[in-house]
Amino acid sequence: MNDEQSSHIEGPVCPMPLRHDEKIVMGHGSGGRMSHDLIGRLFQRPFDNPALRAANDAGVVTVPPGRLAISTDSHVVAPLFFPGGDIGRLAVCGTVNDLAMMGATPLYLTAGFILEEGLDVAVLARVVESMQAVAAEAGVTIVAGDTKVVQRGKGDGLYINTAGVGVLVHDREIGGANAEPGDVVILSGPMGDHGIAVLGARGDLGFEADVASDVAPLNHLMMAMMAASDRIHVLRDPTRGGVATTLNEIARQSNVAIILDERAVPIRPPVAAACEMLGFDPLYIANEGKLLAFVPAEDANDVIGVMRATRYGEEATIIGSVQASPGGRVLLRTCIGSTRVVDMLAGEMLPRIC
Amino acid sequence: MNDEQSSHIEGPVCPMPLRHDEKIVMGHGSGGRMSHDLIGRLFQRPFDNPALRAANDAGVVTVPPGRLAISTDSHVVAPLFFPGGDIGRLAVCGTVNDLAMMGATPLYLTAGFILEEGLDVAVLARVVESMQAVAAEAGVTIVAGDTKVVQRGKGDGLYINTAGVGVLVHDREIGGANAEPGDVVILSGPMGDHGIAVLGARGDLGFEADVASDVAPLNHLMMAMMAASDRIHVLRDPTRGGVATTLNEIARQSNVAIILDERAVPIRPPVAAACEMLGFDPLYIANEGKLLAFVPAEDANDVIGVMRATRYGEEATIIGSVQASPGGRVLLRTCIGSTRVVDMLAGEMLPRIC
Repeated sequence: MNDEQSSHIEGPVCPMPLRHDEKIVMGHGSGGRMSHDLIGRLFQRPFDNPALRAANDAGVVTVPPGRLAISTDSHVVAPLFFPGGDIGRLAVCGTVNDLAMMGATPLYLTAGFILEEGLDVAVLARVVESMQAVAAEAGVTIVAGDTKVVQRGKGDGLYINTAGVGVLVHDREIGGANAEPGDVVILSGPMGDHGIAVLGARGDLGFEADVASDVAPLNHLMMAMMAASDRIHVLRDPTRGGVATTLNEIARQSNVAIILDERAVPIRPPVAAACEMLGFDPLYIANEGKLLAFVPAEDANDVIGVMRATRYGEEATIIGSVQASPGGRVLLRTCIGSTRVVDMLAGEMLPRIC
Repeated sequence: MNDEQSSHIEGPVCPMPLRHDEKIVMGHGSGGRMSHDLIGRLFQRPFDNPALRAANDAGVVTVPPGRLAISTDSHVVAPLFFPGGDIGRLAVCGTVNDLAMMGATPLYLTAGFILEEGLDVAVLARVVESMQAVAAEAGVTIVAGDTKVVQRGKGDGLYINTAGVGVLVHDREIGGANAEPGDVVILSGPMGDHGIAVLGARGDLGFEADVASDVAPLNHLMMAMMAASDRIHVLRDPTRGGVATTLNEIARQSNVAIILDERAVPIRPPVAAACEMLGFDPLYIANEGKLLAFVPAEDANDVIGVMRATRYGEEATIIGSVQASPGGRVLLRTCIGSTRVVDMLAGEMLPRIC
């Protein structure tokens, strides 16, 4: 696992520059020379690190003492590029955020690519560069990878799986079952940006929406929050299914009632407008750079204070509170003073937004 | 992370039994109620363990002290079921073996499913049961999962990514760059079974071949070998690209010559016959339950002795040796006494066998 070792790999396999019209072919998934060539030219330089450079069957790393958090997420978004991000940024952030929502410091990621025959190699190169940029921002290293190729018509350009390992350097228990009456619910910013941005990029809105995805790594935000309060009970990112579905999961796991204040839930005007035109409830629209936090009311100001000082928490705000009953329910106090039950997303709403 | 917590999830979402004609629909990937229902009914019982049961964004586990090995593998095999195995068994063994080839004890796996709309839910259930059976055999726990659904025509039934974490409880360095002159090359059994079994299942042979895939977890075999010798230099499983490609990787990484003895390379008669009829060189056919080991000649008998006493190493044998030069080359001494260069697999040979 040193530089000398890697030179034997790099020598024969990575001299060729990228041709602008190059396409993925089945041979790139053979495990033979074409696979090595693709890996050498596309992945090796952007993702370079000692574990990957050793080119063994697994990356070998050391971790600080502590419990480990382990997570995985596959990404099948269409289109591959959208305002504010792309499938690569999404794939890295998805797993970084899943680890961060356990209070873990994300350290190491794996990346599994399923490529469709005919994919532009230049598209893959852009995605890889995007992954590396956001991995660097989050402070994580991609230590293992895999590439498979499927025949034309058996994929949709590119699917990416990431898995990740983080370390819990503290002994706090953060999880969906730990919400308590007396907690307030904090949302780190306006909801629905990601889902509406992807729909817009797909041309499904039927009009222009000036909305960029919020896809972002939330681990630094989480660390700041953990430093501000040692009584954070729940952290979760409201991705597929949106804020409503995530809160329902937590209400059930903790057997508490969550009371939302409709007027307090932040949403950008173009997202609200798009939802109104399409008949969507923004509470069910996916976010990829937001988190929900449950903290005792006494700690809320401290937590929101540090959140607003970070890049991805500037618009953090309290959107609701926790009561003992009715257990397992999410209730919305509407702008006109009524209260309605907010259920989990039932089935399909927006296909393949992440 | 206790039983009480999980009961709040299981209660509302997993009462429905599997209907025999049930199909995957887009809503199963929504993240909402249908996703929870699918997870509750299909994955929760077979994969049950405390980390998964907690139903958080990541599984939290403890690991013994030591360096970690981390690996990932996506599986896109067609057909999903073949003699000797299926995509689920393949997905678990692929990552277990990648970790084992570093001398690591595999502990925790993640599983990411990409489902094509229209897939029979019963097919998915069979695959999940198969994954759990082989995970139990290998002694690994699936601690995190993810499910996405793609539209009909954007997949091929089912793709599975697994990633894994293992611990190196020793301080030995095993890797492709550590082969040394004086080492012998051990292969754990006959080659080519997996590739030919999948081709046969696909109907591509044009004749019946009585060959079952060798897909198997090799971690117990590896542990026995490590106990027999503390001078194992390289372990690697010759999957895609076969024995020839794997040996070329090692020859390049270690800058040594590997000399194979054609008469010594084991192959079952039906595999040899299928290769001869189709014009394939069995050195390039994939294996999914075999390993190559490089050990000093003095330790070979001890290592082979323990291998032959294990289920997946009964036919282990020496197939070659390592010399200083020509560095980076694999040479084959043929049955008729000549010597030829064996190169890496060039491009595509057998698409989507793993």
